[in-house]
Amino acid sequence: MKSGIILSLFLITSCLAAFGQEAQPRKVKKQDAAVAEKGLVKVSIMYPFAEGKTFDMEYYETKHMPMVAKYLGSNLVRYTIEKGLASGIPNQPLPYMAIGTFYVKNLNEYQSAIAPNRDAIRADFVNYTNITPVILVSEVVR
Amino acid sequence: MKSGIILSLFLITSCLAAFGQEAQPRKVKKQDAAVAEKGLVKVSIMYPFAEGKTFDMEYYETKHMPMVAKYLGSNLVRYTIEKGLASGIPNQPLPYMAIGTFYVKNLNEYQSAIAPNRDAIRADFVNYTNITPVILVSEVVR
Repeated sequence: MKSGIILSLFLITSCLAAFGQEAQPRKVKKQDAAVAEKGLVKVSIMYPFAEGKTFDMEYYETKHMPMVAKYLGSNLVRYTIEKGLASGIPNQPLPYMAIGTFYVKNLNEYQSAIAPNRDAIRADFVNYTNITPVILVSEVVR
Repeated sequence: MKSGIILSLFLITSCLAAFGQEAQPRKVKKQDAAVAEKGLVKVSIMYPFAEGKTFDMEYYETKHMPMVAKYLGSNLVRYTIEKGLASGIPNQPLPYMAIGTFYVKNLNEYQSAIAPNRDAIRADFVNYTNITPVILVSEVVR
């Protein structure tokens, strides 16, 4: 009986010690994404605003971007979409109607994935916009 | 003795059950950051490239952006910095030397935080660049 109690106490203590260590809630740190992105290559497709220009965000989000993302495969870490609201400088026009970005691990792989599909990508433009985009390749610093 | 063994077995089982549940590794999903950002307001400060223009990335990263981030307080979810490398379109010049962005929960709060510090922010520009930035306010779609 006594040895049973001692054994029980030992087990409780061991389990709590192990359990206590595992049960740290993993706080998602604010900068998790930023830390994970430093050093990645970012390709930004930026659609300038101008009178008479149009942009179909729904098509862009549900059709065009997923199509391109599929071409990019595992080289793609994530992609983003933003909708332009206003200039941050008073009395200046909206700079961009929309921007889509791709975070990739390797620029050459990105280019190799796009090249054979360039015609299909360009042909799809007409389904959502009459804007010719500006394209920026950049390095994620933070 | 027998009841001690039964108790021990019960404790082992309970602890393993509890322990087993907690010990699921929390996989950081690729799109965690994106899911967390949808609906946020994004302010992008974009520094256009042009002949004769300069940009000190080290000062920007270590001094200027942290200074502005501090003004923004808890309304700021995260900020990013990227260094322009090239246009993604052949034979086009680099569009931007650098872009800094702030993801905030509330645009009014952002503006209220910046307003009293606008002079200090502008005065700091000369420490890292002679470029007048374009500023875009956008909504995070994805």
